[in-house]
Amino acid sequence: MNRYLITFSYDGSKFKGYQKQLDVISVQKILENILTKLNNGVETSLHSSGRTDALVHAINATGHFDLNINIELDKLKKAINSFSKPSIYIKNIKLVSNDFHARFNVVKKEYIYRMNIGEYNPFLRDYVFQYNKSINLNSMQESIKYIVGTHNFKSFTKVNKDITDYTRTIYSANINQIDDEIIFSFIGSGFLRYMVRNLVGTLIYIGENDINPIFMREILENQDRTTAKKTANPEGLYLKNVFYK
Amino acid sequence: MNRYLITFSYDGSKFKGYQKQLDVISVQKILENILTKLNNGVETSLHSSGRTDALVHAINATGHFDLNINIELDKLKKAINSFSKPSIYIKNIKLVSNDFHARFNVVKKEYIYRMNIGEYNPFLRDYVFQYNKSINLNSMQESIKYIVGTHNFKSFTKVNKDITDYTRTIYSANINQIDDEIIFSFIGSGFLRYMVRNLVGTLIYIGENDINPIFMREILENQDRTTAKKTANPEGLYLKNVFYK
Repeated sequence: MNRYLITFSYDGSKFKGYQKQLDVISVQKILENILTKLNNGVETSLHSSGRTDALVHAINATGHFDLNINIELDKLKKAINSFSKPSIYIKNIKLVSNDFHARFNVVKKEYIYRMNIGEYNPFLRDYVFQYNKSINLNSMQESIKYIVGTHNFKSFTKVNKDITDYTRTIYSANINQIDDEIIFSFIGSGFLRYMVRNLVGTLIYIGENDINPIFMREILENQDRTTAKKTANPEGLYLKNVFYK
Repeated sequence: MNRYLITFSYDGSKFKGYQKQLDVISVQKILENILTKLNNGVETSLHSSGRTDALVHAINATGHFDLNINIELDKLKKAINSFSKPSIYIKNIKLVSNDFHARFNVVKKEYIYRMNIGEYNPFLRDYVFQYNKSINLNSMQESIKYIVGTHNFKSFTKVNKDITDYTRTIYSANINQIDDEIIFSFIGSGFLRYMVRNLVGTLIYIGENDINPIFMREILENQDRTTAKKTANPEGLYLKNVFYK
């Protein structure tokens, strides 16, 4: 048995999310069907670094799987891509040890969020959040500093009784403007469900209403989802990188 | 009666071309339905600067129409955009004289063609031609020079007995590389059907096979479609600008 780690990208606008669900086209289902075929019909699972929600994109998602066959890495990459949909692309495949796990071995993840503050752009309707007006960049940049470090992020996720620990470490969080686009970027030890979109939604609320940046710290300290602001749209979000040791 | 000139963009991947056809979603049909509604039900035609084929995009397409109502330009723009599809966007509207014609008054048009020579990119599958390998840029750049000036472009269009004049003037034609993308750009007095895609297809043939650039002049002089090479894919083509006096 050989264990492989793949890096792949997908256009989230074409799927109802990453995860396999009955009667729905998902990235996982498409890839697992191909892997099972290549593995001579042996049911083959793809263990990803995590899920993305419907309409959310991935630039460098990762996952591992096991095959009983022997095949050169380059041929395996070509084979998967040739069976795959045009909205998914396998960028890289490598052999890993049999105890490697694409989810449990993650040390850091990076997400970006793209927002258009210029005029509506029909070419980017599925690829950026179309905000289409100006915003106070400076107050958002001041606010985002409060989330760097190790914090309880209960205010920024969907509360779920199965979650025992809402603590995550954010290593960096930045907001930059390039032409008419504002790009939020986050590198952290891990991210709770909707966490990036909830952080972005609250940052937008602050920038839109000229709220004192300290508001961000207050929400964090409240540990109460109802005090944070609405979840930003999914189409602006990209899983950019997954880091392993 | 007021005559208006509109500038609009559309994502061609969402339509079966610009032109109205029975039982098909077209840019023209969507916009004419909106204009007719705003014009109190009076059947209203949109006269565009020209058509684009299925899957071809427009960044700044133009068209004129007449309305019997009086409405501020800004409100008219908002009204059309609010009724329109997310894949079409009206960028600008201005009042023009009643003898202005969006097609007959054109003095120059600009098209660009985008080609990805890097790895396949699932986010751009509808927005660039995915060539995905290297090409001889220099021989294409040398070849494209031969088309600048006034020439008979019969070799680069679909021959049609209704066309009496295949002569067009190309004011500029350039090929530039930005990162993994090659961008062909053409400014001319007018373009015959499939002309840009046939020019690009032949340029790609030259770059791919290291053909002597003079081949481009020979094909032009032949005035015979069968000597030029295959039509490049539609998804890389964009109508970029339409110029009036």
